[in-house]
Amino acid sequence: MVALGGGHGLQVTLAALRRITEDVTAVVTVADDGGSSGRLRRELGLLPPGDLRKALVALAGDSPVWTEAFHHRFGGSGALAGHAVGNLLLAGLLETMGDPVAVLDEVARLLGVRGRVLPMCREPMDIEADVVGLDEDRAAVRRIRGQVAVASTPGRVQRVRLRSAGPRPGPPRACQEAVDAVLDADVVLLGPGSWFTSVLPHLLVPELHDALVRTTARRVVVLNLVPQPGETEGFSPEQHLQVLAEHAPGLRVDAVIADTDSVPTPDRLRRAASSLGGTARLSRIARAGAPDRHDPDALADSFRHVLGASDTQRPEFPSSTEIPVREEETPWR
Amino acid sequence: MVALGGGHGLQVTLAALRRITEDVTAVVTVADDGGSSGRLRRELGLLPPGDLRKALVALAGDSPVWTEAFHHRFGGSGALAGHAVGNLLLAGLLETMGDPVAVLDEVARLLGVRGRVLPMCREPMDIEADVVGLDEDRAAVRRIRGQVAVASTPGRVQRVRLRSAGPRPGPPRACQEAVDAVLDADVVLLGPGSWFTSVLPHLLVPELHDALVRTTARRVVVLNLVPQPGETEGFSPEQHLQVLAEHAPGLRVDAVIADTDSVPTPDRLRRAASSLGGTARLSRIARAGAPDRHDPDALADSFRHVLGASDTQRPEFPSSTEIPVREEETPWR
Repeated sequence: MVALGGGHGLQVTLAALRRITEDVTAVVTVADDGGSSGRLRRELGLLPPGDLRKALVALAGDSPVWTEAFHHRFGGSGALAGHAVGNLLLAGLLETMGDPVAVLDEVARLLGVRGRVLPMCREPMDIEADVVGLDEDRAAVRRIRGQVAVASTPGRVQRVRLRSAGPRPGPPRACQEAVDAVLDADVVLLGPGSWFTSVLPHLLVPELHDALVRTTARRVVVLNLVPQPGETEGFSPEQHLQVLAEHAPGLRVDAVIADTDSVPTPDRLRRAASSLGGTARLSRIARAGAPDRHDPDALADSFRHVLGASDTQRPEFPSSTEIPVREEETPWR
Repeated sequence: MVALGGGHGLQVTLAALRRITEDVTAVVTVADDGGSSGRLRRELGLLPPGDLRKALVALAGDSPVWTEAFHHRFGGSGALAGHAVGNLLLAGLLETMGDPVAVLDEVARLLGVRGRVLPMCREPMDIEADVVGLDEDRAAVRRIRGQVAVASTPGRVQRVRLRSAGPRPGPPRACQEAVDAVLDADVVLLGPGSWFTSVLPHLLVPELHDALVRTTARRVVVLNLVPQPGETEGFSPEQHLQVLAEHAPGLRVDAVIADTDSVPTPDRLRRAASSLGGTARLSRIARAGAPDRHDPDALADSFRHVLGASDTQRPEFPSSTEIPVREEETPWR
């Protein structure tokens, strides 16, 4: 199984996947330019390591010493404040070993990772978005550059583009190992996560987009629990699928997983999923008490259901496991 | 075998020792306040990691990826410039694991270290020196604080003191594992290295001094090849032994190893060694073409000779291996 994404969204997908298989490959965005990753990227010109680190730790084995150190951030107010130790180690290995795939395989051994973590591209990427709603003329389109800027600028993203920020500028070139993983996979997962800056970037890498279209793997999209201000403010679940389709011409989807409470109009979502060639699976996948965070166990159950159902032509919502849509107001707006 | 020291001096001792045994314990000074270590120590209040890192790498096994990354320093002119990756990792583990002995054992496993690396004390230490020759009155004594200040201030060090810079200020408390290693050792090595700031500090930790006096191990002192400006400017080899004795009352020494070309008056050195209870072993131990650096192979030969000779009561300088003192001017002055 291959999971594409970045940040916390990918972490939760990986946490769920490792409950059902040991054969997981994470394909991680490399367009981050914020926080510790952004500082390292600007200072050293390397791949932003933060999302790679999060994916490694999500798949790590029983080595609490190293996983804890990897996530640990230096405190205080000095030059190191806020840097995650794992980011610094990844940066060092990127400088000494060069090839990010070799670096990630080496660190995966250290952390006892079950599966593999790959970068989407071997070079850092810059993200650029067309955003509306920033001007008095609400239809005026502004071009915003950089992941942090896109995610934090108010307004609504219409479209994102990607370009290499590495030594060879131009269109993004996929990491070949990531392309091969998608082509060889039985199942490919997209989302959840920051839609425009963590999920869609993979579809903007031509070879990766092509592999996602061509692969015989089942394609599963996991929707977010709540819209993200600055990126998907006011987006319905259907609109998430719509922008996905706009950024990935020709991509078919076998299943769309969403949280019952996050979908105000299930019929519309089912129609949107259907228009991409797939079915929608709604169940409670948010954490109890934290409606904006996925519960890995519940998400794993959804994966099992979607994948099992597809194998055996079971009905999409067997009465024994379906949870009805609640009457109350949903957190989605 | 236990080697006490710090910095490059300890590195060369360890490189030589690993040629003759796998059972090496390095006991490392923790009074450094310069460079990457000093920045980390000031920013995070941790043990200075640099000398610990050097000792770990000196004993590391066949894991070139990790040893290279450990020594790698970030370049550029940013916040990380000059930091060794291994120092940052050690700092992170010191923050997450707490106990420096556990941290060093963990990293030793990563690097495939043969032997063990221990800190002299579990808390960072401050060094303070009485220095003469800084004023017009050449006999006036100035008190200089900090390893870098002591090593870089011109003048001549008369005496050094040590005090804890950790959360429990006061006299230094030894790392118990280091004390035990000294008591259990067959051989204990002191030097080479910055005499006042890397070699003598161990003798200023009361429990470690006591262990060095009490141990049944053979005690071997390795002298420096050249005097160090700011610390031992103008010191003869005999004077090195003299200040050692002054800082370590009651300490007996079984053998003193020195480079033939660095000893202008061998008889005086033999007498000085004898006054400490031992013999002097002179041979060529400097690297060809680098008279200020030890050759690990030659140093290993010297160790073998000294240790073998002691076992079998062989004469100190068997004619087959002795290299005569050269007639030409020595680099020592």
